[in-house]
Amino acid sequence: MSQILVINPNSTEAVTRSMDDALEPLRAPGGPDIKSVTLAEGPPGIQSQRDVDFVVPHLVRRIAADNQSDAFVIACFSDPGLYAARETTARPVLGISEVGMTTALNLGQRIGVIAVLKQSIPRHTRYFRAMGIAERVAGEVAVDLPVVELSDEAKTKSRMLAVGRTLKDSHGADVLVMGCAGMARYRAPLEDALGIPVIDPTQAAVGLALALVRLGLKPRATT
Amino acid sequence: MSQILVINPNSTEAVTRSMDDALEPLRAPGGPDIKSVTLAEGPPGIQSQRDVDFVVPHLVRRIAADNQSDAFVIACFSDPGLYAARETTARPVLGISEVGMTTALNLGQRIGVIAVLKQSIPRHTRYFRAMGIAERVAGEVAVDLPVVELSDEAKTKSRMLAVGRTLKDSHGADVLVMGCAGMARYRAPLEDALGIPVIDPTQAAVGLALALVRLGLKPRATT
Amino acid sequence: MSQILVINPNSTEAVTRSMDDALEPLRAPGGPDIKSVTLAEGPPGIQSQRDVDFVVPHLVRRIAADNQSDAFVIACFSDPGLYAARETTARPVLGISEVGMTTALNLGQRIGVIAVLKQSIPRHTRYFRAMGIAERVAGEVAVDLPVVELSDEAKTKSRMLAVGRTLKDSHGADVLVMGCAGMARYRAPLEDALGIPVIDPTQAAVGLALALVRLGLKPRATT
Amino acid sequence: MSQILVINPNSTEAVTRSMDDALEPLRAPGGPDIKSVTLAEGPPGIQSQRDVDFVVPHLVRRIAADNQSDAFVIACFSDPGLYAARETTARPVLGISEVGMTTALNLGQRIGVIAVLKQSIPRHTRYFRAMGIAERVAGEVAVDLPVVELSDEAKTKSRMLAVGRTLKDSHGADVLVMGCAGMARYRAPLEDALGIPVIDPTQAAVGLALALVRLGLKPRATT
Amino acid sequence: MSQILVINPNSTEAVTRSMDDALEPLRAPGGPDIKSVTLAEGPPGIQSQRDVDFVVPHLVRRIAADNQSDAFVIACFSDPGLYAARETTARPVLGISEVGMTTALNLGQRIGVIAVLKQSIPRHTRYFRAMGIAERVAGEVAVDLPVVELSDEAKTKSRMLAVGRTLKDSHGADVLVMGCAGMARYRAPLEDALGIPVIDPTQAAVGLALALVRLGLKPRATT
Amino acid sequence: MSQILVINPNSTEAVTRSMDDALEPLRAPGGPDIKSVTLAEGPPGIQSQRDVDFVVPHLVRRIAADNQSDAFVIACFSDPGLYAARETTARPVLGISEVGMTTALNLGQRIGVIAVLKQSIPRHTRYFRAMGIAERVAGEVAVDLPVVELSDEAKTKSRMLAVGRTLKDSHGADVLVMGCAGMARYRAPLEDALGIPVIDPTQAAVGLALALVRLGLKPRATT
Repeated sequence: MSQILVINPNSTEAVTRSMDDALEPLRAPGGPDIKSVTLAEGPPGIQSQRDVDFVVPHLVRRIAADNQSDAFVIACFSDPGLYAARETTARPVLGISEVGMTTALNLGQRIGVIAVLKQSIPRHTRYFRAMGIAERVAGEVAVDLPVVELSDEAKTKSRMLAVGRTLKDSHGADVLVMGCAGMARYRAPLEDALGIPVIDPTQAAVGLALALVRLGLKPRATT
Repeated sequence: MSQILVINPNSTEAVTRSMDDALEPLRAPGGPDIKSVTLAEGPPGIQSQRDVDFVVPHLVRRIAADNQSDAFVIACFSDPGLYAARETTARPVLGISEVGMTTALNLGQRIGVIAVLKQSIPRHTRYFRAMGIAERVAGEVAVDLPVVELSDEAKTKSRMLAVGRTLKDSHGADVLVMGCAGMARYRAPLEDALGIPVIDPTQAAVGLALALVRLGLKPRATT
Repeated sequence: MSQILVINPNSTEAVTRSMDDALEPLRAPGGPDIKSVTLAEGPPGIQSQRDVDFVVPHLVRRIAADNQSDAFVIACFSDPGLYAARETTARPVLGISEVGMTTALNLGQRIGVIAVLKQSIPRHTRYFRAMGIAERVAGEVAVDLPVVELSDEAKTKSRMLAVGRTLKDSHGADVLVMGCAGMARYRAPLEDALGIPVIDPTQAAVGLALALVRLGLKPRATT
Repeated sequence: MSQILVINPNSTEAVTRSMDDALEPLRAPGGPDIKSVTLAEGPPGIQSQRDVDFVVPHLVRRIAADNQSDAFVIACFSDPGLYAARETTARPVLGISEVGMTTALNLGQRIGVIAVLKQSIPRHTRYFRAMGIAERVAGEVAVDLPVVELSDEAKTKSRMLAVGRTLKDSHGADVLVMGCAGMARYRAPLEDALGIPVIDPTQAAVGLALALVRLGLKPRATT
Repeated sequence: MSQILVINPNSTEAVTRSMDDALEPLRAPGGPDIKSVTLAEGPPGIQSQRDVDFVVPHLVRRIAADNQSDAFVIACFSDPGLYAARETTARPVLGISEVGMTTALNLGQRIGVIAVLKQSIPRHTRYFRAMGIAERVAGEVAVDLPVVELSDEAKTKSRMLAVGRTLKDSHGADVLVMGCAGMARYRAPLEDALGIPVIDPTQAAVGLALALVRLGLKPRATT
Repeated sequence: MSQILVINPNSTEAVTRSMDDALEPLRAPGGPDIKSVTLAEGPPGIQSQRDVDFVVPHLVRRIAADNQSDAFVIACFSDPGLYAARETTARPVLGISEVGMTTALNLGQRIGVIAVLKQSIPRHTRYFRAMGIAERVAGEVAVDLPVVELSDEAKTKSRMLAVGRTLKDSHGADVLVMGCAGMARYRAPLEDALGIPVIDPTQAAVGLALALVRLGLKPRATT
C-alpha cells in the first residue's frame, strides 16, 4: 500500500500524536497509509528562525533515507527544508504553510493567520511575500501565551478565539489558517464560534498529498 | 455514502465522460462517491464570456436543487457561477480554475497555462489578477485549433506539447496547468515529455473536495 | 443625433429616475442624447452575487437588441455582464464600477468606497484586484442600512457621512467613490462636508461615454 | 461660458495647433470652451527629465495666474507639475498621462504605450508604478526617429504602426496609448490597421475635464 | 582628495549644520571629503510639492556647475531633481529618500516613516510606489508640529517618540526612517526608546556615496 | 580598531581571496578593518538549496562564537542563515543578495541578475519576491558554464558579457547585479562594455556594513 509520511520536525511526541489524531478522517480503506513520525533530532518546539534552520539537515536526511513513502508532509508552519527536500527526492514533498495558505485562497477572500508566537510573524510575512500571495493576507496575530500555559486547553482555546475574533472583526479576515501544527482540536470550535472557515494546515497538506499520490502527479525535480 | 458532484457546464456528454475517467484514481472504497453530470442546458462548448455568463443561472439552479451531494465541483476553467453558487448552499463549491491554479502554487514557481482558445486568455488574466496570484503566472498560450481538429487526438497532443514547450522555454514556466476540463488524457504524456509537473484542474478540484468532505470543513456562507 | 443608453439593471423605476436626474448636467444641445432605461427583467435591487449573475443574460440581450444607441452604460456597481456585452457589440460598453474607480485614480491617492451592503464588499474586492488597482484602494465600508431605512433620505445621508468620515479619517482615503447607482443626490453634500472629492460612478461613466462617442473611439471587439 | 485651458508646455505652436485640431469633436454649442495655448517659456520639445522639470515653475505660474478657466489640462505625457499645480488652484488640473492611462484601463486588459523617444521609457515606467497600475502595462516601445524625420508624416506613421504591431503581437497589448501630445492624427489609422483601440491622451484628458466641469466635481485641494 | 557634496536644498544654514554634524562619523583620514552646502536659492523649508518642484532648476544647475565633487547627495526627503541631476552628470547622484528607504529594507520587514508634515504623506506615498517597494511600507505618520514649535527640541523629540511608537505598535513597523533631513540628533534617542533601528536618511545616503566613490562604480548615464 | 567580518560560506580559499581583493578600495586608514574568512565546514561551492541550507548551522555558530567583529557579511548570493544569524547577535549581519539588490534600486529602474547556475534562478526568484522588490527585477539569466570552465577567465568573461547583453537588450535591464560572490574582477569590464552600472554584491554589502559600523546603527534584535 502506498504511504504518506508526515514528519513533525520537533521532538515532542504529544504534538505528533495530536496531529495524527486529526488526520484520522483522511484515512480510507485501500489507503494510502498516513504515517506520522517525530523527528528525534528536532528541538522540543520550533520557535526561532534558528530552530527552523538547524532542523533542516536532519529533516532532509530523514526524507532522503526513506525509500518506502510515496509523499512527504513537513508539519511545521515555517516549512523548514521544503525546497532542499524537493531536490532530494522525486516524490512529492509538501509544506503545511504553503498548502494551508493556498487552500485558504479557495475558502475566503482575506486570510487571517493565527500565530502561536509574535516573533514568528515577520518570518511568516517574508514567506507569504515569497509565495506571491501577500495581497490576500488580511493579517496575522499571535496567541503569545507562555509555553506552560499552552498546555492549558481552556486558556489556549479562549485566547485563540480572541485572536480569531480580532482577525475577523478588525482585520476583515473571512477565512482563518492556524499557523502551527498540532492545534487541530481547536479548529471546529473556532469555526463554530466565528462563523468563517478555519483551516488546520496539516490536514490541508495531507489532503493534497493524498490527491497527488493517487493521481501519480510528478513533482518538480530540482527547483 | 457522501457524494461529490462534478458538473460539466457544457452539454457535451463526451467531455463529461472523459473528465470522469480521469477521476477514477480518486475513487476509494468507502467513498465519497464522485459523480459526474452534464448540464443539459449548457452550450456544446463554453468559449466566449457570453457562454460563461449565460450558463450561470442554470448551473446555480442545478446546485440549489441538489440535496444529496456534500460538495460541488464546477468543471469549466472560467469557474462560471462559483460565487453565486456559494451563496446558494452551505456545502463546499469549488471551481477548477481556482483550485488548479492554487494547487500549482505548490508544485512550481512560475505557472504556465495552456488555453484552448486565444480569446479566453484576457478573461483568464482578469481572473488570475482577481485571485491575487498573477505574480506567479509565467504566461498563457493557446492551442487555438479549430474545433473539428480538437477531436483529432494526435494533432491536439502534438499542439499541446508545442504550447507547453513554449511556456517552459520562452516564458520560464516550471509547472503547467491545462486551462480546460476534459483534457486529462494529455496530462501524463505532457509531463513525461516536458519534465515538469502538469496539472489537470478537474482532478485537482476533486482532490480538494475529497479532503474538505472528509474533514467536514465548513465553507464560507455568503461571500 | 447620437445616443448613450444608460441601463439600470434593477427593475426599480425610482432608481432610474434618480440616476437620470443626476445626468442632467452632462446633456448638451447637439447631443449626444442620454437615455436612461430600466431593465424590466431585473430584480428590485441587486444585492447578492446571484442577483448580479442572473441579470446578465437579460442585460446582454437588451444591449444586443439595440441598434439605435452609440454607447452603453451598465449602471450597477458590480458591472454585471460588462465583458459579455462587449463581445456582443462593437460599440462602447462601460461599467460604472470600472469607470468610477479609474476616474478616482485622477482625483486622489487613496480611494475609499462607500458600499450599500456589507455583503458586497468581498465581491468588490475581487473586482478591484481584477482591475489591477487594489494598491490604490484605502478601504471599503458599508452603509448597511435595512432597505426600508434607505428611503429615509435624512437617515441615509447621515449614515453615508459617517461612513465617509471613517474612510477619510481611519482608512486615509482622499477621494471617495459611491459604490452604487442612484445615490448622486448625496454626492455634493458629502463632498462639502468631508472636503475631499466624491464620485458618483454613473456620472463618471456617462462622462467617459460622451467623450468616446464624440471622438469615435473604437472599443475592443471580443476581449 | 465655462472654459477648459489646454496648455502645451513646449513652445512649438505647430504642436499646439495639431493638438487643438484633435479636440474639435469635443467642442459643443453651449460649451465649455476648449482653449489650447502654448507655453512660451517651454523648450521646443520636452525630451529629457531636465526638460520636464525645468518647465514646471513656468507652467505652475501660468496656471496660478489664470482666473478665467474652470479646468486645466497639462498636455505633455510626463505630466510636468501636475501635483504642484493642484496645490495652486482649487479647480481641476489633469495630466494627459494619468488620464490617458486610466482611460485605457476601460478599453483593454493590457496597455501598450508608444513612446516617441527611448530615453523617456524609464521615466514613464516610474510614473506608471507611482500610479499603481504597472501590472496592467504590457510594455512600452519607442518610435525613436530623429526629430527631423518626425516631421515626415508618412515615415512617422509607418514607424508608429510598426511599434504598435510589436506591442500587440510580442507584448500582448490589447489597447494602445500614444505617449505624447500632438499625435492625434495617427490615432484612427493605427486603430484601423491594428484592430485594437488607440488612445490620444490629450483627447482623453479633455474628455474627462469636460465631465468634471459640467458636474462641478471638486478636486482635491492640496495633495 | 575625492569629495562628496551634500546639498541642502533649503536655504536654512542651521539645517545644513545639523546635517553636517551627523555626518562626522563617516569622515575618515584619506577621505573622501564630505562637504555640506546650503542652496541659497532654496526656500527656508521645503514643505509643498511646489517647494519641491521650484527648487529643482537651481539644484540641477548647482550640480552641473560643480566640477570638483565625485558624488552628490540631495538632502531633502522628496529627492527633488534626482533624475534630472543624473542626466546632468556622469558622477553618482543620490537622493536621501531613495537611499534611506532601500537601506531600511535591510534592517526590518516593515518600514515606518516619520513625516514632518501631514501634507507630505501623499507625495511620499506616490514615490514609494514609484520605487516599487510600497509593499514593505507599514505606514507613515506626521509629527505635524507648527514650525515655531519644531525649534523646541524637547517638544519635537517627545512628538517624534509618540509617532514612532504609533508606527511600531499600531502599524507594525520594525524599522523607522526619519522622513526629513536635519533630524539626526533624534535618531539615537528614538532607537534607544523604541528598540528598533531608526535611520537618518542623510547618513544612509552619504554612506552609500562613500562606497560608490571608493569603488568607482559608474552611475547610469541618462535614465 | 573596529572590524567587519566577511564570511565566505564555501570552503574554497581562492574564492575568499578573490572577494577580498575586491574589497581593497573600501579599506581606509583608521578602519574599520575588513577581514575575509573561509568557512572550513562549507562545501567547495554552494550550488543547490541543500548546499545553502546545510551550511547554515556552521555559519550561525561561527558568527555566534565571534566576539571581536562589529558587523558580519555573509558572502553568498543566497544569503544563507541571514535571519538566524540576526537572532544570534545584536551586531549587524548583512547578506550580499539583500544588499546587492537594494543597492541596485538606486542605480537603475530595471535590475538584471547574472546567475552562475540555472538551477539557482527559482531560489533567487522566491527571495526577490520575499524582499518585496520583484517588480523591479527585469530578469535573471545564468552563465551556466561547467565548473571546470569557470576557471577559464577569458571564457567566463565572454559568457558573462553575453548574458549581460541579453539582460540589457532583451529584458530591458538598466543595472546589473552579479549573482555570486567572488566575481568582482569581471565587474569593471562588464560595466565598460555594456554602458550600464554593474554591482558586485560583496562590495555593496561591505560598503553598507562600513556605514552601519561608523554610524553605530543598531540592528533589529530578533526578527
